[in-house]
Amino acid sequence: MSEQARTEISSLGEFGLIDHLTKNVEIHNASTILGVGDDGAVIDHFGKQTVVSTDLLLEGVHFDLAYTPLKHLGYKSVIVNLSDIYAMNAVPTQITMSLGISNRFSLEALDEFYEGVYAACNRYQVDLIGGDTTTSQRGFVISVTAIGEVSPDKFVKRSTAQKGDLLCVSGDLGAAYVGLLFLEREKRIFMESPGVQPDLENETYVIGRLLKPEARKDIVDFFTEKEILPTSMMDISDGLSSEILHICKNSNLGCVVYEDKLPVEEAMKTAAFKFEIDPTACALSGGEDYELLFTLSQSDYDKIVLNEQISVIGYMTEPEQGSHIITKGGGKHAITAQGWNPLK
Amino acid sequence: MSEQARTEISSLGEFGLIDHLTKNVEIHNASTILGVGDDGAVIDHFGKQTVVSTDLLLEGVHFDLAYTPLKHLGYKSVIVNLSDIYAMNAVPTQITMSLGISNRFSLEALDEFYEGVYAACNRYQVDLIGGDTTTSQRGFVISVTAIGEVSPDKFVKRSTAQKGDLLCVSGDLGAAYVGLLFLEREKRIFMESPGVQPDLENETYVIGRLLKPEARKDIVDFFTEKEILPTSMMDISDGLSSEILHICKNSNLGCVVYEDKLPVEEAMKTAAFKFEIDPTACALSGGEDYELLFTLSQSDYDKIVLNEQISVIGYMTEPEQGSHIITKGGGKHAITAQGWNPLK
Repeated sequence: MSEQARTEISSLGEFGLIDHLTKNVEIHNASTILGVGDDGAVIDHFGKQTVVSTDLLLEGVHFDLAYTPLKHLGYKSVIVNLSDIYAMNAVPTQITMSLGISNRFSLEALDEFYEGVYAACNRYQVDLIGGDTTTSQRGFVISVTAIGEVSPDKFVKRSTAQKGDLLCVSGDLGAAYVGLLFLEREKRIFMESPGVQPDLENETYVIGRLLKPEARKDIVDFFTEKEILPTSMMDISDGLSSEILHICKNSNLGCVVYEDKLPVEEAMKTAAFKFEIDPTACALSGGEDYELLFTLSQSDYDKIVLNEQISVIGYMTEPEQGSHIITKGGGKHAITAQGWNPLK
Repeated sequence: MSEQARTEISSLGEFGLIDHLTKNVEIHNASTILGVGDDGAVIDHFGKQTVVSTDLLLEGVHFDLAYTPLKHLGYKSVIVNLSDIYAMNAVPTQITMSLGISNRFSLEALDEFYEGVYAACNRYQVDLIGGDTTTSQRGFVISVTAIGEVSPDKFVKRSTAQKGDLLCVSGDLGAAYVGLLFLEREKRIFMESPGVQPDLENETYVIGRLLKPEARKDIVDFFTEKEILPTSMMDISDGLSSEILHICKNSNLGCVVYEDKLPVEEAMKTAAFKFEIDPTACALSGGEDYELLFTLSQSDYDKIVLNEQISVIGYMTEPEQGSHIITKGGGKHAITAQGWNPLK
């Protein structure tokens, strides 16, 4: 954002602002029959089923503008919603974006935010089809609804895992949480000594995972290509432990997870050690990974074994056996949800 | 809300709260394939097109809890979104509801809000299929997305009015704004002299129009029954003048409106006089009416003439003629948008 220019949002009025923000909107999907600019948007998924998910992101609760660039925030606001659509085994096609903006935001700041929104829309080929833009007395409010499509009855719920299924995750876990620890630490240092320059050069991986997550389109595409239908699936936003317990509870099953199978990056382990915390704890409880957690029939094992982006971390058991993790040392511990609680 | 009971929301946790708020959710539509409780909801409109609209309502900007009962607020939050779906000539079928709640809200308060949400859902036969519930640092945040269905290509935009079309509105206008004036006045009196009892007995109509608006399902049903397809339509949320100018601009037309055709209730006129304001100004610029503004081909006049809920207020002209109102005294004035600007 240029320091020179500051255009007050109120100078455009609501409709001028909407025109400004949406004048370059591109449509990527034939399903978008009518986009921005009317009371509602119109979608035709042509015989497919429609999947809907929504998230509310509030300043001071979900993000801190002290260390979150607005462009990244715009990008991430879209991604966290697309992740939910992929977690249903569906393909996102449209989003609506509503914003509450306080008067400390200039038009230039809002443009930066929308640069990120449009970058995510282009990368994932989704269409921005509507929203609502209003003033807020305090704090930046972001509400996104993502819409997707799925072939009839091919959506995947959390409640349909079967005993003996393989428990799998995509990508790697825990890095976003460690990235958050670095940024919170730098913020404290900056508040105490504004002259000190941040030293985050070696932490680009973990910080990138926090500030610019991606949604696992590639995994859902891979399922389609290999004709795999997971028996259950959800995305990992609150932390692996918490999500595993959702699948177990909703499917009325237990599970066994192996610590040495949890996918973690070397960069995350190195960074975690700087805070003297256990990388496994980060992987289990960190949150904001936006990876996919899913169960597969054992007969699908051959189809996934060569995909390096998929790790089998355990298997589903009878509910009476509970949900446990087997540590590297051979210990057995109950899995507990220590994920983020947005109501505390 | 009982003064005796206060349950802290944080005592339930996010998932306990969602379970509590959605345990009695009823499904009214065959199109709701999967509702609350997964990463996303699944909808199948079975060959129809899907209409989507979203609104963000912020405390202190869109509502004042000093005089807005939470049950009414829950009801109205749904209605204002359904109104947008009807304004597309579509039938609402589902909503998502996201809330940001500060810790001054108890579970009992939230239950009251949801009583209103469910009352609206039942009355309009729409299904609550998802949402997001989080803490807010300050202020109550409400984000609703409404989803509806329409037969392919029967949706009605703002941009398709034709020269010579009749300009029509449903119901009556201006009352919600006068209701707001009363409640703002009572709030000032209460702040200055807390012992004074409010005197609003005679103002139930205008206050009811503000606090508990309805969406014009009956008008859209009437169109279907009479095989009427409006040539353009939108709902009246920011004030009639502002909305007329949208239709004129988007359809590239002008219009003539007759003051003596504007539908106003006696109760509104009486109330407006108490504030020494012109009822016509309230009807033109008041806002929050949630009536429908639409244009019809003149050949449809016979079909609507007996419907007392529809008023023909003028007609569409060439764009060069501009947008004018002819007053009761025969004067001619340009229509200007003086509606509510949520960005000021």
